[in-house]
Amino acid sequence: MTAYRLASIPGDGIGVDVTVEARKVLDRASSQFGFSVEWTEFDWSCERYARLGAMMPDDGVGQLSAFDGILLGAVGFPGVPDHVSLWGLLIPLRRAFQQYVNLRPVRLLPGTTSVLAGRKAEELELVIVRENSEGEYSAIGGRHNAGRPDEFVLQESVFTRVGVTRIIRYAFELARTRSSRVCSATKSNGLIHSMPFWDEIFAEVAAEFPDVHSEQMHVDALAARMVQAPDRLDIVVASNLFGDILSDLAAAITGGLGMAPSGNINPSGEFPSMFEAVHGSAPDIAGQGIANPVAQILAAAMLVEHLGETVAAQAIRAAVDRVLDEGRVRTPDLRGTDTTERLGTAVAEAL
Amino acid sequence: MTAYRLASIPGDGIGVDVTVEARKVLDRASSQFGFSVEWTEFDWSCERYARLGAMMPDDGVGQLSAFDGILLGAVGFPGVPDHVSLWGLLIPLRRAFQQYVNLRPVRLLPGTTSVLAGRKAEELELVIVRENSEGEYSAIGGRHNAGRPDEFVLQESVFTRVGVTRIIRYAFELARTRSSRVCSATKSNGLIHSMPFWDEIFAEVAAEFPDVHSEQMHVDALAARMVQAPDRLDIVVASNLFGDILSDLAAAITGGLGMAPSGNINPSGEFPSMFEAVHGSAPDIAGQGIANPVAQILAAAMLVEHLGETVAAQAIRAAVDRVLDEGRVRTPDLRGTDTTERLGTAVAEAL
Ligand SMILES: CC(C)[C@H](C(=O)O)[C@@H](O)C(=O)O
Ligand SMILES: CC(C)[C@H](C(=O)O)[C@@H](O)C(=O)O
Repeated sequence: MTAYRLASIPGDGIGVDVTVEARKVLDRASSQFGFSVEWTEFDWSCERYARLGAMMPDDGVGQLSAFDGILLGAVGFPGVPDHVSLWGLLIPLRRAFQQYVNLRPVRLLPGTTSVLAGRKAEELELVIVRENSEGEYSAIGGRHNAGRPDEFVLQESVFTRVGVTRIIRYAFELARTRSSRVCSATKSNGLIHSMPFWDEIFAEVAAEFPDVHSEQMHVDALAARMVQAPDRLDIVVASNLFGDILSDLAAAITGGLGMAPSGNINPSGEFPSMFEAVHGSAPDIAGQGIANPVAQILAAAMLVEHLGETVAAQAIRAAVDRVLDEGRVRTPDLRGTDTTERLGTAVAEAL
Repeated sequence: MTAYRLASIPGDGIGVDVTVEARKVLDRASSQFGFSVEWTEFDWSCERYARLGAMMPDDGVGQLSAFDGILLGAVGFPGVPDHVSLWGLLIPLRRAFQQYVNLRPVRLLPGTTSVLAGRKAEELELVIVRENSEGEYSAIGGRHNAGRPDEFVLQESVFTRVGVTRIIRYAFELARTRSSRVCSATKSNGLIHSMPFWDEIFAEVAAEFPDVHSEQMHVDALAARMVQAPDRLDIVVASNLFGDILSDLAAAITGGLGMAPSGNINPSGEFPSMFEAVHGSAPDIAGQGIANPVAQILAAAMLVEHLGETVAAQAIRAAVDRVLDEGRVRTPDLRGTDTTERLGTAVAEAL
């Protein structure tokens, strides 16, 4: 029996609420599909920051590196600035473990309706392949003439040949397993250094995949297409920032943020990959037992899929679909009155 | 009788097709509302670039500076790289004339339907106030180690206190004439130099306008809200790049890009302001007489409004509404078979 060592970092807010349920489902799946899981939980969070002055210990990265995978709840809580909570945990982990792919599949789940008029579920199935290690999210920059009328700030975007090539190649390889269509988000007309470079590498990689249909769109037009003709999109490859925006939009036109999982993936397997819901810690509804755990349960499915347990992953997704389709157990965002815990249990039982 | 000197730069592709119609409507409005217009046309375009090696003459900015307003078609044509066509005309004009506001109002026009399910016209009326002179669109940056495996590109975003303050203040002043609500697009959790600075100035300006309700959202969540709860948005103030993306999205959820006008505004009046459709030159359908001229006609309405001819501006908008509402004259994007010219004439006659 394969045994996996998994790390759980519930984090803050509803991250804690939903991670319990995702673990419950994953544990049930393991016992049914012939693998075992040993969890280690880490209390790294804004609460830890308030207590000890750091989101995680100095050797946090080292502590996690031997795990087979990481399930992350969410980080962020009022009173702790985002640059502390995120740049003290989420972003350094993404980078230290070279999780250069942020994979964000969305589809319209059963029992949910799209905000878009007249769209069928088949038309609303896409994957955002988001660059996760560089680009617009850079710590390089700063403030000049602070406090003076002529004050200004610089923020540097950094795009490397290695970084851009590997994410685009990942998208093309993924396309071969799906629709064979890749659309690249650019903005070479406005951002005249970074995006022409991105486009150039996109063209080079596209030439290696003559069997895959490739196109590129400016990110503004692509956002418009996502709501006007989502059926014309399947795999969208995008920079860190563009992927962030487009994946929230993609989640919004499908089941909403309560339903969208994501994987921070290190494709080589050299380092652990990390899975999380796209949604944040939502402090306003934390601890009330009303958060929808589906996104985090689907993140757990991505985790076991990444470990190679494809059958278990499919079973988890099917269980989610069945519970949503029946519609008996629904959290408030699904216009029901059930708790996070009841929805998690229902999915575990549907397995 | 007030006489205005206006410059027309039809540019490329459908820019030419729609500008003729917008001028026709504006001329008709002038004769009805007691002002006169003298047009000067400039052939600045990709076609000129192909002929003479430059989008506009060296003293192009000087030639335009004495006009009361500029009507721009669109620039861009296959074979001329975007950084040439846009950075050789559109973007330098925006900057030379300190048109630091890019004002992009959208609403669901009569006779059109939203891609969003079940939304009424009242719920789909917003204005994107986009910063238009700095930010992510900067010429600063470049390539290092070109052609080597360790090649990388830097792209600098530049946010100044002056630039950020004036655009945010403009949004708050505009709010007083509308709903008294301003939402700021941020991404301070990812872009830790530029966006915290933006947020800080937003808070400072908000304090000057205690009567205006202010909030801020991360741009990813804001894009999601725009499709999930557009009725909760009225004025959105955003950086150059975020405003670009959010305004295309706003156009997409209302009538589409064929309907969305925009103004590049120099609020002090020291330099001419420039009005254009949000859509591009669409070379694939250029010259066929099938482009929808409504966006450009509404841009002309914004132009006359900017000149102080409020009654004429309202009359143009009302004429557009009437023609669309009747639905007898419709271009192909409105599921009709009429030409650009017929729709333009119909609006002029409805005046
Ligand atoms: C053509 C391009 C540079 C331009 C922009 O992004 O500013 C356009 O998309 C717009 O929105 O006016
Ligand atoms: C919290 C934030 C830094 C993060 C991001 O933008 O990467 C989040 O929005 C996400 O999409 O994972």
